[in-house]
Amino acid sequence: MQEKSLKFHSELSGKIKIIPTHEFKDHDDLKMVYTPGMAYAVEEIARDPKLSFKYTWRSKAVAILCDGTDVLGYGNIAPEAAIAVMEGKSVIFEHFAGLSAIPMCVRTQSAEEVIKLAKQIEPSFGAIQLEDIKAPECFEIESTLKKELSIPVFHDDQHGTAVVTLAGLINSLPLVNKTKEDIKIVINGAGAAGLATAKLLDKYGFKNIVILDSRGILSSDRNDLNKYKIEALEFSNPENISGDLDLALQNADVFIGVSVRDLLTKKHIESMNSKPIIFALANPVPEIMPEKALEYGAFIIGTGRADYPNQVNNVLAFPGIVKGAMDSNSQISEELLVNAAIGLAKCVEKPTPEKIIPGAFDKGVFESVYNEIVKN
Amino acid sequence: MQEKSLKFHSELSGKIKIIPTHEFKDHDDLKMVYTPGMAYAVEEIARDPKLSFKYTWRSKAVAILCDGTDVLGYGNIAPEAAIAVMEGKSVIFEHFAGLSAIPMCVRTQSAEEVIKLAKQIEPSFGAIQLEDIKAPECFEIESTLKKELSIPVFHDDQHGTAVVTLAGLINSLPLVNKTKEDIKIVINGAGAAGLATAKLLDKYGFKNIVILDSRGILSSDRNDLNKYKIEALEFSNPENISGDLDLALQNADVFIGVSVRDLLTKKHIESMNSKPIIFALANPVPEIMPEKALEYGAFIIGTGRADYPNQVNNVLAFPGIVKGAMDSNSQISEELLVNAAIGLAKCVEKPTPEKIIPGAFDKGVFESVYNEIVKN
Repeated sequence: MQEKSLKFHSELSGKIKIIPTHEFKDHDDLKMVYTPGMAYAVEEIARDPKLSFKYTWRSKAVAILCDGTDVLGYGNIAPEAAIAVMEGKSVIFEHFAGLSAIPMCVRTQSAEEVIKLAKQIEPSFGAIQLEDIKAPECFEIESTLKKELSIPVFHDDQHGTAVVTLAGLINSLPLVNKTKEDIKIVINGAGAAGLATAKLLDKYGFKNIVILDSRGILSSDRNDLNKYKIEALEFSNPENISGDLDLALQNADVFIGVSVRDLLTKKHIESMNSKPIIFALANPVPEIMPEKALEYGAFIIGTGRADYPNQVNNVLAFPGIVKGAMDSNSQISEELLVNAAIGLAKCVEKPTPEKIIPGAFDKGVFESVYNEIVKN
Repeated sequence: MQEKSLKFHSELSGKIKIIPTHEFKDHDDLKMVYTPGMAYAVEEIARDPKLSFKYTWRSKAVAILCDGTDVLGYGNIAPEAAIAVMEGKSVIFEHFAGLSAIPMCVRTQSAEEVIKLAKQIEPSFGAIQLEDIKAPECFEIESTLKKELSIPVFHDDQHGTAVVTLAGLINSLPLVNKTKEDIKIVINGAGAAGLATAKLLDKYGFKNIVILDSRGILSSDRNDLNKYKIEALEFSNPENISGDLDLALQNADVFIGVSVRDLLTKKHIESMNSKPIIFALANPVPEIMPEKALEYGAFIIGTGRADYPNQVNNVLAFPGIVKGAMDSNSQISEELLVNAAIGLAKCVEKPTPEKIIPGAFDKGVFESVYNEIVKN
């Protein structure tokens, strides 16, 4: 696999390239593409910069902005290494949404400088996708840019996971005969994905969400919480319980793990309510392997892995979300993300415990997410 | 033309797009392009960031960086409007050199901020082409980036024109039986293109170069020169003459205009030495129209226009120069530019007054420029 992969990545100089949209072969083509033909487009846009969305590739150009501080499975690595990840996202963007996404892996790890850079490059792009930027910097970068830019800003690590997980939950509830008002959800992990998932589930209407970080349940009894975890108390832990994962899981209906491999035990699952729903999303090794989870009594199990059913895969979400936000001139809001999850859930016509989430190449996934955003 | 151009620019959302280099259709492709396949490339590059040139598109990715301060014919316009220009360059880069060039039209007009931004985005690109940045900021940006970046930095407005003009001169000299040591060259215009052309002609070996700005000949008697014009005295005006264009052109052999339309008169040309060589490069209206120049006694006339012979067109130069510098791991030096001009001059097998410069679509232009750089 290694040899095959390295050959794949090198033989055509990476995974993406730029080509002209029109045939280009002679002086007549040059006169249209460059001077004097382009002058008409330049003049129109100079008169009204918004027309850049009409007369340039801006309506399909997405900057994938990454500072390399939290690259999946690797943590803080050279920005150069993150290009290979972003090229993968670019291929996915093109295939599903027809977007042209440019890896922008930058050499700075200051939130302030990433924000400044994003504002400077905004005129050339139709959207900015933030990728693999560590918490808590990612929160500040995202919230500032959403306020100060006029194009959609999407942080995939937070909201991609959140949207797909919510879609899976939406399709799980009828299978276990439970409602969003009644169930208890435990989220283990209070980084980018964990907090974003909690917030989105709250927005959708789940009432009892308990979040844990490595030191235990986020509660008002803790005095070691950063401001993002303190904010999370507004939409989590309504009974203000304190303690560890063992305690949190007692009588829980759903476990969502976004942190540590090999964490969940038989005892944990047995302490949950009937028909436990498990999202073990640690990557590449989940909090519990699916076969074990089912053996210990889980009713539904999803992971981040392609080799098991119910893959929680951001690929399902980000093309439709970003293209939907671009085409509807929307900023990425919690409402938009809920709609994306509803659209994604709809793709599975008859949910079963083995299929609460569609596959990346199932027909109509992109369209369903996109349409649900654009029509709302 | 306007209607056709606007349709052309809008019907496919601009002039460029990103596509995958490999077929992408199913889960197996996804596993190679994204996780887990990409992990091998990520790990290699994390170990040695230089391998980003091997395992990502970096070896062909060029950032076309523009602050919109000096867009051809328009001056200082919205960066959004400059995208249409940069997309045109991108099409040219792809067609001739197989490079993927990304329009980066930024919202800042501070040289310091453009420099900082270029340094931050460097890890994602194999070269940076500066475009349409006004003088004198362009000089500071270019010289600082050349020193501080490890990838080639090319300012097309300066050196593109300079290289093509030098190539034209190289092919003109045998036609007029003159040598580079003996002739007098007058350059009218002391902005980016004028100063860069003077410097390159000096590097090639021309001895008597006189430069003028809007106030007259650059000489040590002037006390109103900025530091770039003062530097230019080191390689121009060896006799330290002072005065206006009328004076400068007396007994000149070559006129190179990079400034003002409709400037050159019959009297000017008549005051030059025998067989005057005229490069009237003001765009789109040259310093003198070719038919007039020939009527008044010019022996060779080149312009920036595609509808006359001898078009001084940057398209001839920048694809080969940038790709050549990238592939030979070189910074853009005066030596490299001289080699580019020699390579370009070689493309015209039998120069005539009507053809001292090849056409953009003549066979072998890119290869000749590229090879002359890479072999040196």
